[in-house]
Amino acid sequence: MLIIMNANATDNQIQNVVNFIKSKNFDAHISKGEIQTVIGAVGGKIIDPRDIELLDGVKEVIRISSGYKLASRQFKQEDTIVEVNGVKFGGDNTGLIAGPCTIESYEQMDETAKKLSDMGIKILRGGAFKPRTSPYAFQGLGEEGLKIIKKVADKYGMAVTSEIMEISQIPVCLKYVDILQVGARNMQNFNLLRELGHINKPVIIKRGLANTIEELLMAAEYVMSGGNRNVILCERGIRTFERITRNTLDLSAIPVVKKLSHLPIIIDPSHGTGLRDKVAPMSRAAVAAGCDGLIVEVHNEPESALCDGAQSLYPEQFKALKSDLEKIAPIVGKKIL
Amino acid sequence: MLIIMNANATDNQIQNVVNFIKSKNFDAHISKGEIQTVIGAVGGKIIDPRDIELLDGVKEVIRISSGYKLASRQFKQEDTIVEVNGVKFGGDNTGLIAGPCTIESYEQMDETAKKLSDMGIKILRGGAFKPRTSPYAFQGLGEEGLKIIKKVADKYGMAVTSEIMEISQIPVCLKYVDILQVGARNMQNFNLLRELGHINKPVIIKRGLANTIEELLMAAEYVMSGGNRNVILCERGIRTFERITRNTLDLSAIPVVKKLSHLPIIIDPSHGTGLRDKVAPMSRAAVAAGCDGLIVEVHNEPESALCDGAQSLYPEQFKALKSDLEKIAPIVGKKIL
Amino acid sequence: MLIIMNANATDNQIQNVVNFIKSKNFDAHISKGEIQTVIGAVGGKIIDPRDIELLDGVKEVIRISSGYKLASRQFKQEDTIVEVNGVKFGGDNTGLIAGPCTIESYEQMDETAKKLSDMGIKILRGGAFKPRTSPYAFQGLGEEGLKIIKKVADKYGMAVTSEIMEISQIPVCLKYVDILQVGARNMQNFNLLRELGHINKPVIIKRGLANTIEELLMAAEYVMSGGNRNVILCERGIRTFERITRNTLDLSAIPVVKKLSHLPIIIDPSHGTGLRDKVAPMSRAAVAAGCDGLIVEVHNEPESALCDGAQSLYPEQFKALKSDLEKIAPIVGKKIL
Amino acid sequence: MLIIMNANATDNQIQNVVNFIKSKNFDAHISKGEIQTVIGAVGGKIIDPRDIELLDGVKEVIRISSGYKLASRQFKQEDTIVEVNGVKFGGDNTGLIAGPCTIESYEQMDETAKKLSDMGIKILRGGAFKPRTSPYAFQGLGEEGLKIIKKVADKYGMAVTSEIMEISQIPVCLKYVDILQVGARNMQNFNLLRELGHINKPVIIKRGLANTIEELLMAAEYVMSGGNRNVILCERGIRTFERITRNTLDLSAIPVVKKLSHLPIIIDPSHGTGLRDKVAPMSRAAVAAGCDGLIVEVHNEPESALCDGAQSLYPEQFKALKSDLEKIAPIVGKKIL
Repeated sequence: MLIIMNANATDNQIQNVVNFIKSKNFDAHISKGEIQTVIGAVGGKIIDPRDIELLDGVKEVIRISSGYKLASRQFKQEDTIVEVNGVKFGGDNTGLIAGPCTIESYEQMDETAKKLSDMGIKILRGGAFKPRTSPYAFQGLGEEGLKIIKKVADKYGMAVTSEIMEISQIPVCLKYVDILQVGARNMQNFNLLRELGHINKPVIIKRGLANTIEELLMAAEYVMSGGNRNVILCERGIRTFERITRNTLDLSAIPVVKKLSHLPIIIDPSHGTGLRDKVAPMSRAAVAAGCDGLIVEVHNEPESALCDGAQSLYPEQFKALKSDLEKIAPIVGKKIL
Repeated sequence: MLIIMNANATDNQIQNVVNFIKSKNFDAHISKGEIQTVIGAVGGKIIDPRDIELLDGVKEVIRISSGYKLASRQFKQEDTIVEVNGVKFGGDNTGLIAGPCTIESYEQMDETAKKLSDMGIKILRGGAFKPRTSPYAFQGLGEEGLKIIKKVADKYGMAVTSEIMEISQIPVCLKYVDILQVGARNMQNFNLLRELGHINKPVIIKRGLANTIEELLMAAEYVMSGGNRNVILCERGIRTFERITRNTLDLSAIPVVKKLSHLPIIIDPSHGTGLRDKVAPMSRAAVAAGCDGLIVEVHNEPESALCDGAQSLYPEQFKALKSDLEKIAPIVGKKIL
Repeated sequence: MLIIMNANATDNQIQNVVNFIKSKNFDAHISKGEIQTVIGAVGGKIIDPRDIELLDGVKEVIRISSGYKLASRQFKQEDTIVEVNGVKFGGDNTGLIAGPCTIESYEQMDETAKKLSDMGIKILRGGAFKPRTSPYAFQGLGEEGLKIIKKVADKYGMAVTSEIMEISQIPVCLKYVDILQVGARNMQNFNLLRELGHINKPVIIKRGLANTIEELLMAAEYVMSGGNRNVILCERGIRTFERITRNTLDLSAIPVVKKLSHLPIIIDPSHGTGLRDKVAPMSRAAVAAGCDGLIVEVHNEPESALCDGAQSLYPEQFKALKSDLEKIAPIVGKKIL
Repeated sequence: MLIIMNANATDNQIQNVVNFIKSKNFDAHISKGEIQTVIGAVGGKIIDPRDIELLDGVKEVIRISSGYKLASRQFKQEDTIVEVNGVKFGGDNTGLIAGPCTIESYEQMDETAKKLSDMGIKILRGGAFKPRTSPYAFQGLGEEGLKIIKKVADKYGMAVTSEIMEISQIPVCLKYVDILQVGARNMQNFNLLRELGHINKPVIIKRGLANTIEELLMAAEYVMSGGNRNVILCERGIRTFERITRNTLDLSAIPVVKKLSHLPIIIDPSHGTGLRDKVAPMSRAAVAAGCDGLIVEVHNEPESALCDGAQSLYPEQFKALKSDLEKIAPIVGKKIL
């Protein structure tokens, strides 16, 4: 932590700051510049920088260590590769996950999974617990839905990914789901994150609608600090002033995360745009930017979907897209799985 | 729902849209204008407007009914007044809640509460479960903390408000807390909101960092639809590009909420600014704008607070502020409680 | 400027950074901490911090001197008071400016000004050059409009404030206008700002829709560095995700500016909310937060206004509001002028 | 325009609204639904929807016609292709523009241009008028700079693109520049836009930092309504809460613009990220998303650039990037020019 003093700060004020940070078990390193004195504070515990900012003569306090450690590239140089059902996320692998927004029925899941499986997709998505803005909207089939997706996935040799919304759902999710997914609105549900640190299945954490990449890495840190190192980050669009797309998909998160962290980062172009005809261009763009995976909404009959049909691809659209992705990936040194 | 067709939409396209919405159990009212045809869809269930937007010839789909009903001023004309321990929120009342960010010890709570009680404050705040960005930061005392605040509150005849972070904490909160508070990061934790609809204690819902007022009202609707009508809305600052303040306190939420809803709206100037010297001006402003209450962080010794000391007032500062507020409130037809 | 090196930065990397900043005429002060080495760079000219961030071993570069000097409270301790026609902005004064959004006709200006003058208002606002989103919308009366407002202002002994949109309008504005106003969309029109540094009339600079307070102070610095020290800052609402209000009025800008700068800050509650029934509550709030002035849209007949009638007060509404403000101001040590 | 009445609006209120819009020369079409009455207003001039919203009984007013006409895909079905020096933007063409942020000297431009020309680049960029946040920063070489870039461009048979900041610079820009560029901060400098409608050279309009795509199209409309139909739109990153990248590059603008408008859209990955090592991934992504062109900062010696060196590519990096782009473009049916 660096404490920048005002240009006209007095010796007394400087000493006062030094005493304060020492009382918090920090070492103080004073560096008097021509214009300003800067005090480096090293070694103490977590402290709120604003406590120092309120002291007389202080201009600004700057934290210089990021809050995440286990998630950082400094902590682990080589890429983390998460592998599920033979599909790898990270390194030179770009894994694909596909399926409908919501589990609606056995028939719907079976038809969709069959078509996806025929294309070589090995991880099936589908929501059983749905976070809905309105209390009057369809809230998902719950455990019944998980049973369906598990049965269908088994039939086609696929693994399952599905969203978990609260701690009490952990046991049931562990029973049926291979990759647990934390939704954007729960990215800072710290209790849930902490508990997911104790399970032994991979976790996808979706970036919150108004959260920074550093906050996303802090969320990963919550899970990792509990012992679970199999974390996949997911960019799914952030809230901006743009109203035509549902969210603004921040593809620069891909190179940013890859520099700061060893964790894989995947893209959700379906929620990221909210519009079917934008999904393919943004998927191609994501692969061209070097993402480690894609999670795409595909529905056997999007026009009759109970949820998010408007952003779901038809199976044949996804098939054509996959073919494009397989051409783009090698250009950036990746292979589609 | 109104469906605006393109200027050059064909009769076939219009008919196709009509068929689609009828298949979803809506009535269709076609209105052919000079420029555009508009189709009104009435009476069906919830539908995703994007499903219609994808049909040929459709320019735009507009939802005309807001999602909240029970929370709306149309549903209930007169102000809802929530009363706790003789303090009223709503109508011509501006209720005060004060106390530290976090419950740290019996002594801290006792000293703070004593001073607040002497000033006439009847509702004590203090957090036992703390949502922290870092897994390595102090996470609160938990039930032990709630026992402390309850004991202290009883001693001075005060009521207690404290934050709840997940469903499993409901029983313990009900035991010690009079007003349960849902934090900004949990504003769209729909499972938690739904469960709080079944308790018989008032709930404060804080606006999320990037949420609109309509979304805040939808969160209230979740609680109210379960039967609990004692909801207090709280503006606590939203995330903007401004970096000097921790958040941007949106005081226009006060007149906006009072027009759209019958629910009381209170202001948290402590989180709303994040800086002690901004708390008093923004509190005065909030009362001048007609808020129904304030929740202010006050600590007996802010400089040694474990959390948010930088935004906590000294008891004497709060006393001076309260005196100002009592002068401003009558100018806008309110009284401070 | 402080350069934070990575924890594992080598001596070579550190030396390389030192060489680089010395080549840019900075002095280098190395401070080796337990965890990280920090290099202070002092005395050079302006440099893009990213140039250093790209050097090997560098974690982060932090600018520690703000870009504005003349506008800063450090440069000038006492409040700048701008006085026009006996109305003062700054210090313990809260000056009022009122009038319609747009100059429409002599009759409109005369009727509005008469009523405002009767209430004691001494500065009349009205736009002649209008920044409109659509090229097909009414663009203002131009010089003809300025002649009207000047004639009417003279009749009632009032001063004039009006918006300037480009450099070529300076001569005509100087002829008729007493306070030149730079609109939000021009806050970073640096050429215009620079030219306004050479005139000898006060300038109001409105905060841009997505600009920070520091950027607003930088805009003031542009004008001040040219020699014109009579700058008034104006908060008029920033763009946020909220859709009900036209903008989000950031009243915390008041205490923030007063701490960082000696310049007066006024509030525009009309553009700040965009809705007539929100103007009075937010005006009261602004005065309670200690603003140095208000600029309010008042129209003799809002329902027939050519522009922004929806956010204009009726003269009698403004009169009632003024009476409230006169009661609130003394509570915060201010007087309404 | 559609006026949604409150569910309990009276016949009197409805009639009052009808009278009001008729007084503004609109035709009124009343449609009484089961729940709400909706009034369609057709044919009048521009009116501020808020004027109607303030009438009794009105719930909401919705504009249904977008403000842009000439820029819309409805107005012109086929893609506009802008051609300069043999390079095409639009249709199945992806044109490249490259060069340094700022014109610094003849040598710098000559060396950079030589390398770019060798790679086949036919349009050279370089700024002579620089919008800088600080009045103390380097402001560009002005006309002297334009003379240099023109001389160098002529030497290598290249065309020139450069930024124009104000109306008075139009004559000098027309003398030396082939494509005039309007910067993000001037996207709503309506006077400048209007004047550029009267020139006969192409104009690039960059999206403002907090502007929507619809506002960008409105800016294009300003230019087009003056007669100049050669407009190229440019996405260059918007301001979001993310702090690691300078801006957030919104690549979804590509498919969105292509649906709404016939104008070409190009991407500026240099300003869009602000960091050299993010430029290549985002360029690849932009081409994969189907953009009509790229404008990339390339400098012969980025580490000694006077401006934005940190986001400038080395010539050899750009060469490698171009080779990747040439592989990606055909996959999406485009060719790099």
